[in-house]
Amino acid sequence: MKNPIIPFSIAMLSIAITYSAFSQGVLPTTVPVPKDNSMTATKIELGKQLYFDPRLSLTGTVSCNSCHNVMSNGTDNRPFSEGVHGKMGGRNAPTMFNAAFHSVQFWDGRAATLEDQAKGPLGNPVEMGMSNGSEQEADRVKQIPGYITEFKKVFGGSDPVTLDNVVKAIASFERTLITPDSPYDRFVNGDKKALDSAAQRGLSLVKSSGCLTCHSGALFDGPQLPIGTGFYMKFPTYTNNPYVKKYDLMADVGRYTATHNPADKHMWHVQSWRNIALTAPYFHNGSVKTLPEAVRVMAATQLDKKLTDEQVTDIVAFLDSLTGEHPKVTMPTLPETLNGTLTPRAQ
Amino acid sequence: MKNPIIPFSIAMLSIAITYSAFSQGVLPTTVPVPKDNSMTATKIELGKQLYFDPRLSLTGTVSCNSCHNVMSNGTDNRPFSEGVHGKMGGRNAPTMFNAAFHSVQFWDGRAATLEDQAKGPLGNPVEMGMSNGSEQEADRVKQIPGYITEFKKVFGGSDPVTLDNVVKAIASFERTLITPDSPYDRFVNGDKKALDSAAQRGLSLVKSSGCLTCHSGALFDGPQLPIGTGFYMKFPTYTNNPYVKKYDLMADVGRYTATHNPADKHMWHVQSWRNIALTAPYFHNGSVKTLPEAVRVMAATQLDKKLTDEQVTDIVAFLDSLTGEHPKVTMPTLPETLNGTLTPRAQ
Repeated sequence: MKNPIIPFSIAMLSIAITYSAFSQGVLPTTVPVPKDNSMTATKIELGKQLYFDPRLSLTGTVSCNSCHNVMSNGTDNRPFSEGVHGKMGGRNAPTMFNAAFHSVQFWDGRAATLEDQAKGPLGNPVEMGMSNGSEQEADRVKQIPGYITEFKKVFGGSDPVTLDNVVKAIASFERTLITPDSPYDRFVNGDKKALDSAAQRGLSLVKSSGCLTCHSGALFDGPQLPIGTGFYMKFPTYTNNPYVKKYDLMADVGRYTATHNPADKHMWHVQSWRNIALTAPYFHNGSVKTLPEAVRVMAATQLDKKLTDEQVTDIVAFLDSLTGEHPKVTMPTLPETLNGTLTPRAQ
Repeated sequence: MKNPIIPFSIAMLSIAITYSAFSQGVLPTTVPVPKDNSMTATKIELGKQLYFDPRLSLTGTVSCNSCHNVMSNGTDNRPFSEGVHGKMGGRNAPTMFNAAFHSVQFWDGRAATLEDQAKGPLGNPVEMGMSNGSEQEADRVKQIPGYITEFKKVFGGSDPVTLDNVVKAIASFERTLITPDSPYDRFVNGDKKALDSAAQRGLSLVKSSGCLTCHSGALFDGPQLPIGTGFYMKFPTYTNNPYVKKYDLMADVGRYTATHNPADKHMWHVQSWRNIALTAPYFHNGSVKTLPEAVRVMAATQLDKKLTDEQVTDIVAFLDSLTGEHPKVTMPTLPETLNGTLTPRAQ
C-alpha cells in the first residue's frame, strides 16, 4: 500500500532526474560567493570573532558556535539545542560545514543565503533571543569598542556596525568551513583504494536503490540550483511503516511553516550526506540516534523498501567515506568588553 | 579612623616583606609541573578537548571554556557566570591564564593545584552540575568512545577514564596558557622604551604607595610560596570609605567559607595583576566595572589612601603594561557522540 506522491514532489523529482541524477562528483574546493560580500582576510577574522562571541545573545551565554560547534563537526549532537534561558529549539541544529554550497538554508529552506540564515538564530527567542529584525544585535556589538574599530576597517563608512554587516562577516567565516578530500572524493579522483569493498558495495546500492534520485550531486543533496531555489522532498513520502509513528515524523509540517502553502506540508529541504557519520542524531527532529537506523528509516519512508542488514552495513560504510577533512581553525581573540560596562545579564 | 589589622594578616604581610617585596620580575616562560602529572603533547591535546567539551556538564551546554573563555582572556567579563539551567555563580570567574603559577586556586584558595581546582566547577551544582566527588564526570566521558581510546593512549591501563585523569589532562592544557612578553617584561629585560612615561610613573607609584607590599613577585600576587600555601590578605582592611557599602564588599566572608576558621573571615587569595586590564569586572563579586575605579577602591580599602586622578591614570597605564602575549590556540576536534546515544538533556 503506497501513499500517493503529491504533484509538487513529482515535479521536483523530474528536475532531479533531468539535471543531475547519478552525477555525483568531487566536493568543490571553492565556494560560491555573493557579489556584494567578497571574502577578505579581515572580514573572515571578524566573522570568526562574531561566530564565537556569546555576547551576541541576549544573556551573553549563547554563540553561533554553541549549537553549530566548529569543534564538534558543526553540530551539538543533540536532538534539539538549548538557547538562552535554557529554552529548547524545535528542530535539530544542522552543521554549517559545507552549508556554503547549499542553495537554501534551514530545514525548511526559509533563507536563501548564509547571510539571511545568520539573522535567524540571532533573532529567535529560543536561540540567541535578540529582537528579530531590529538592530538590537548591532547595538550589542556597538557596546564593544574593539568591534567598532574592526567593522570600520572591514566595511568602511562612519557607522558600519549594522545587522547586515554582522551577518556578512559571519557568512564570510562560514564560507571557509568546507571539508574536501574525503575518501569518496579521493576515489572519484582516481584512487580506487580509497573506498574499501563494503563502501563500494554501498555506493552501488545507493545508486540501484534510488537514494541518489534525490541525494544527487557533489553534496548528495540534490541538483545544483540557483541560490534561493531549494530542492524539497516530502518526508515521509510513505507512511506504511512503523518508523513514522515511532519517530514522530509527521508532527512537524516542514516547509509549510515557512510558506503556509498547503502543497508544502511535510516538504523538507533535502539534506547533504557530507559528514553525515558525524552529525547524529538524525532528521529534523533528531529522533533517530544511529546512522544505520536512519538508513532503514529513509529506505522505508522514501522508497518503500526494506533493506537487509548487510545492505544497511554497506550503505553506512559508503556514507562513512563522505567524511572530509575539517579545516584547522585558530581561536580568535574576542575584543574585550570595555571596562565591564557590558553586563549582559542586566539587559 | 583605621580598622585594626588582624594578626593573621600581619603574619602574612611579614612573609611578603621578608621574601619578595619589590622583587618584581619577568614572568617565567616555564611553569611548575607536578611530579605525578608530566606534560606530554597527547595529554595536552586531550586536556584541550575536555576543556572545550560541553558534554562534561550535566546539561551538555557548559564547558570549562564557557566561563574561563580562552578567546576572551580567560574570563567571561561578567560579574558572575551562568552555569547549567541558567543558575548563577556567586563569585567572579577568574582567568586561567597564568593560573599555573599560583600557589593556590580559587578566590578563597580552597584548592592547592589546577587538578584540584578543575574538580570544583565540574561538581558545582550552579556551574557544570555533576555530582561532586563522584565519578559521574568520568562516566559521562566514558560514553564517548573516542575519549576512551585517547585516555588509554595518554594514561595507559585498562580503565584510565577516571575523574583524576580527567582533571590531570585539563590541568596539563591549562599549564600551556601563560602570557609572557608583556611591555613590562620587555622593560625589565632592558627595553626602556617598552613603558611610556605614564606607565613608568605608575610603576613608581605602586612601589611608593605600598601596593607592592602585597602584590609582589613576577605575578604581582605575593611571595612565591610552595604549592598549597596561599598568600591571603583581608579585603577590605579599611572600611572607612564609601566603597565598602557601594560595592557590597563585606557580604562574602571569603576564605572563611572554605575553612570555617574565624581568623579567615574576609581573607582573600591575593590576585595577580597580570592581564588585569582585560579581566573586568573586578573583585570577588565583580562589582567594580572599571580598572581606574578598582585602583581607587584598593587604595582606599587596603591602604587607607585617596589617590589623585593623575595618580590613578598613571597606575592604570602601568597595569596596562602587564598585558602579555596570549598563545595562539588551535581548536580541538571533539570526539563524536557515538551514534547519538549521549543525549545530555535526558540525563
